[in-house]
Amino acid sequence: MPSFSERLSDAVLRTKSPLVVGLDPRLESLPLTFATLVKGSVWDQAQAVRDYCCWVIDVVANLVPAVKPQLAFFEELGPAGTQALADVVRYAREKKLLVIGDGKRGDIGTTASAYANAYLGADSPWGMDSLTINPYLGTDTLQPFVRTARERQAGIFVLVKTSNPGSGDFQDLQLNSSANHAPETLYQRVASELNRLAHEPEAATDRHGLCEIGAVVGATYPSQLSDLRQRMPKCWLLIPGFGAQGGTARDTAGGFHDNGLGAVVNSSRAILYAFDPQDRTHHWVDAVRQATLNANQQLRDATPAGNL
Amino acid sequence: MPSFSERLSDAVLRTKSPLVVGLDPRLESLPLTFATLVKGSVWDQAQAVRDYCCWVIDVVANLVPAVKPQLAFFEELGPAGTQALADVVRYAREKKLLVIGDGKRGDIGTTASAYANAYLGADSPWGMDSLTINPYLGTDTLQPFVRTARERQAGIFVLVKTSNPGSGDFQDLQLNSSANHAPETLYQRVASELNRLAHEPEAATDRHGLCEIGAVVGATYPSQLSDLRQRMPKCWLLIPGFGAQGGTARDTAGGFHDNGLGAVVNSSRAILYAFDPQDRTHHWVDAVRQATLNANQQLRDATPAGNL
Repeated sequence: MPSFSERLSDAVLRTKSPLVVGLDPRLESLPLTFATLVKGSVWDQAQAVRDYCCWVIDVVANLVPAVKPQLAFFEELGPAGTQALADVVRYAREKKLLVIGDGKRGDIGTTASAYANAYLGADSPWGMDSLTINPYLGTDTLQPFVRTARERQAGIFVLVKTSNPGSGDFQDLQLNSSANHAPETLYQRVASELNRLAHEPEAATDRHGLCEIGAVVGATYPSQLSDLRQRMPKCWLLIPGFGAQGGTARDTAGGFHDNGLGAVVNSSRAILYAFDPQDRTHHWVDAVRQATLNANQQLRDATPAGNL
Repeated sequence: MPSFSERLSDAVLRTKSPLVVGLDPRLESLPLTFATLVKGSVWDQAQAVRDYCCWVIDVVANLVPAVKPQLAFFEELGPAGTQALADVVRYAREKKLLVIGDGKRGDIGTTASAYANAYLGADSPWGMDSLTINPYLGTDTLQPFVRTARERQAGIFVLVKTSNPGSGDFQDLQLNSSANHAPETLYQRVASELNRLAHEPEAATDRHGLCEIGAVVGATYPSQLSDLRQRMPKCWLLIPGFGAQGGTARDTAGGFHDNGLGAVVNSSRAILYAFDPQDRTHHWVDAVRQATLNANQQLRDATPAGNL
């Protein structure tokens, strides 16, 4: 199997789109045609979530390279929800979409290995192509994820600068400069660790110079995004915050390489819930498709994705 | 229902133990009597994990106040494992053990709310008393967990200084001091945010002066543990790293208040896998019980838990 980065590059080039559709299934926001299931048991609710996500996958397959299920919304439904997650992941992969699991996992030693074993790679129980990772516990806790990603042709996206208003509380803190380091913030320090991992000889670098180590950087902080693009040339950037969170297509431009690769941009609510919430028909299918096409066009018009 | 802190204080006082038994079910380490299940399908494997954890719960109930299932080892078995997790949590609560879910979750806004809804409180799908949380995304991302914990008489333990060798990579970084702040490290800054949350008027402070906001601080860093005890007087400390990771009972002493409350100490492998791995009999039950009693005695001898 080609490396994660190779598969992602190929999918972006094939669809001429850097858009990732975030699967954040909120029961209260599903189309009214799912109302009966939503009001049922937790197994009915999980069925509604599974059905809606699979419908969306049908709509966006061939239009975008990847989907990003948000694990929290599946876990919120208990074991029934986690079974729905496994079904949705399998369905997305059948439709040739890459799956980026948004779990923001992070733990030490063998526990990190257990998370990596759980999610990374087609033969893992959850069968994802990639997983988001939280670096707070330290570089040694990233190693098991990196190792497993390399063994299984999978990828990781490590949180660097997140899209929320309070992301600066800790990530933007200025570190004391020392003889060894230029002045930098915490998120810049995390980025330099990722850049180091991306330059290890074992890194699975593809023909575009990108590898399996990625970073999450919010569209809501465009100047930091450009800075981080420079600091991690081999890393894919996963850019949340486009759409409902206020980031524009133009704000994401600094995350791309000139050839239009190197960044994927997530949109969740603006696509998933693009329909009129009072519409009881199946017009929501058209609304989701149109929102996807619109987002693609915006990204092609305002970023190097236009060069794809 | 009494607050989380009240329930934890009561359980510690009743058992005269600050010990939390970590449920880290690793298939390759289970007693040989489970070998047939371990070699079976993933549903058999989940059954082995469920059975072993419930056996351990039977052994340690009344000896310790709480158990701490590590979510990674359940997720490693896919949906079957997460169903086993739900069963194990329910069983532990039936046996009057508090359940601290070790998931190290963290995300923004409504996603953080979804995780909180999933895990916190007896009526949630997973029904836990408390959950471990990762603060990297910022203080605004702690708020949904705090709010839900307060609504549901649950608690949270936020990562401050973790027990792994590389925890210093980011947590120990010295921050640039400014007019507003004395010189401090990242983990000290996180601690001061938790202390602030613990002093909000809405905090559920119990009769011992402790509340629902807790912190994770490793036994492997005893001097930082004492420092953090001072910085967060109202917070419970959850102390991992005792036992297999090298921390001694003495190393945990600085985490307690003089009355023996305010800290709980986790041991996972040293208790769960205390038996002779070649023993095909049920002697492992005695080994687990004896390891629990020994750990209790060590903590009573070497820490203020002797005053309980």
